[in-house]
Amino acid sequence: MSESRTEISSLGEFGLIEHLTKNIEFQNASTILGVGDDAAVIDHFGKQTVITTDMLIEGVHFDLMYTPLKHLGYKSVVVNVSDIYAMNATPAQITMSIAISNRFSVEALDEFYDGVYAACEEYGVDLIGGDTTSSPKGLVISVTALGEVTPDTYVKRSGAQLHDLICVTGYLGGAYLGLLLLEREKKIFLETKGVQPDLEDRSYIIGRMLKPEARKDIIEFFDKVQLVPTSMMDISDGLSSEVLHICKQSNTGAVLYEEKIPIHPDTKEFAYKLEIDPTACALSGGEDYELLFTISQNDYEKIKEINGISVIGYIAEEKEGATIITKGGNKHKLVAQGWNAFSK
Amino acid sequence: MSESRTEISSLGEFGLIEHLTKNIEFQNASTILGVGDDAAVIDHFGKQTVITTDMLIEGVHFDLMYTPLKHLGYKSVVVNVSDIYAMNATPAQITMSIAISNRFSVEALDEFYDGVYAACEEYGVDLIGGDTTSSPKGLVISVTALGEVTPDTYVKRSGAQLHDLICVTGYLGGAYLGLLLLEREKKIFLETKGVQPDLEDRSYIIGRMLKPEARKDIIEFFDKVQLVPTSMMDISDGLSSEVLHICKQSNTGAVLYEEKIPIHPDTKEFAYKLEIDPTACALSGGEDYELLFTISQNDYEKIKEINGISVIGYIAEEKEGATIITKGGNKHKLVAQGWNAFSK
Repeated sequence: MSESRTEISSLGEFGLIEHLTKNIEFQNASTILGVGDDAAVIDHFGKQTVITTDMLIEGVHFDLMYTPLKHLGYKSVVVNVSDIYAMNATPAQITMSIAISNRFSVEALDEFYDGVYAACEEYGVDLIGGDTTSSPKGLVISVTALGEVTPDTYVKRSGAQLHDLICVTGYLGGAYLGLLLLEREKKIFLETKGVQPDLEDRSYIIGRMLKPEARKDIIEFFDKVQLVPTSMMDISDGLSSEVLHICKQSNTGAVLYEEKIPIHPDTKEFAYKLEIDPTACALSGGEDYELLFTISQNDYEKIKEINGISVIGYIAEEKEGATIITKGGNKHKLVAQGWNAFSK
Repeated sequence: MSESRTEISSLGEFGLIEHLTKNIEFQNASTILGVGDDAAVIDHFGKQTVITTDMLIEGVHFDLMYTPLKHLGYKSVVVNVSDIYAMNATPAQITMSIAISNRFSVEALDEFYDGVYAACEEYGVDLIGGDTTSSPKGLVISVTALGEVTPDTYVKRSGAQLHDLICVTGYLGGAYLGLLLLEREKKIFLETKGVQPDLEDRSYIIGRMLKPEARKDIIEFFDKVQLVPTSMMDISDGLSSEVLHICKQSNTGAVLYEEKIPIHPDTKEFAYKLEIDPTACALSGGEDYELLFTISQNDYEKIKEINGISVIGYIAEEKEGATIITKGGNKHKLVAQGWNAFSK
């Protein structure tokens, strides 16, 4: 990183936007007009558009003490394209709005946008607009993503049917343990100035927190084997909360098996070191950005050969509620934790 | 307004979203799926989509000391649909993201959303999604609007041609004087507690600031008389700044006539009272949300009978730059002021 510091005020609003967007090259034929007018224009060619938006607030969703700006830019895009994939759609465009204070230099913003553009390239999306404004304090990021889907092949949360298999991709709980590690080292650093953070070579869980990926590969796989899940969503708030969403919106219950929940060895090891239950991290820790979906039992053959998809339970009747059967054979009700930002 | 106060934490995130969105009824056939899933879905029926986004930050774009929340909700939608109209398109959907701190009650949010829904009804748009999150301090609003346009009839900033007529809608400068009045009364109130604000019955300029409208009527008129402007944008930063945008993006110059710039009598009167030049308010004051557009001289007949459209000058050669001819016959270069949020 260069040591020079260019004040944002030296460019002005329009100079800054030009600086940040000058190298954009469109990757999608549907992108007709991008940054630089009152609005962008996109075409559709007989597709439907899927749209989602997420806001990230400094001090609520990220901590710049341990989050590199480039990673933050990347993740801001990923969390949105993940929602597009969760509809069984393909992301195509994003808008990126940021509010920044004077403490950010042009070089710092360049780092952030390096991450944004890296994610755009990885997921094949075009940055087509946004708003750049000042903030009295704290960084605010608001992203809207648009995706394309063949008419009426999008997948909602509300389509799960009795006896469907409940599946998840990848491993769960890692991002939450990465957060715990980063928070622990931050606390030590603040209490004992000069002590360098000891991240114990735990790059897996830290990577899960700071640089998550969205499951583009799974959506491509669904298309390849002609599989349409009956319901789907991404796992941003923890598995329990998401399974309860599917159940509520599909008017069903669910049974999960603890032993089937995929947890990475590195996640397990660090959880045991902290003396917390890895399963609890998977159920209630958020930010994994894996996909949770249900399929008809008839489609089981299509997924069983695939690495990275785990069947963790089945859809039950609504009156049975959502439960988990522990390794010891006990049955517990699923409880949503997660969002309590407004609680004291 | 009810005097009860319901804490946001008593509803939780999903309860809050349900509370705020439970009465939504779609107004557009293109809106297929709205709030409540990972993303919304929209159809197109052979149209192109126009998309824009704006972020509003407390302490930068609005002051809650004199901005009623209902007006703020309304204006948050208006500033975005105004950008859609400025593309010669029809707004159809919005997403609304807000970050709020604990100091807001559910009742306060209801007021804000009353304004959002009133604007949605006025402009025929559907609220289809968003994000509701917490803020450590200050209210942040981020809106994305989508509009529809018959393929390739959108109007960019870059199409102005030599000798085109430069036109504006409505009156300019009023919103800026409304802001000056509100800021003056705020200062007096803070310095002398208990003194009631004296808004001098100046409802016109205050209304221009607190409850602007977007020019839906003009776009409908263009459609009716089959007029497609050669370039267009909305006036959010002041006339000078916007004319310079058109000139830069169209590679032209411009000549404006001071005497042709439309300024409302109430705006003039208050400007004279403050001993400031009303023309300067029109040129450099922002937030009028009128439309600036250029038309071929051949189209003059189509607009000349219409109340509310003023021809204020013409497009000149690029080398002449952008100038204004004063009432006294002097020629001055146009200078963009406006955005200096990052300057000290």
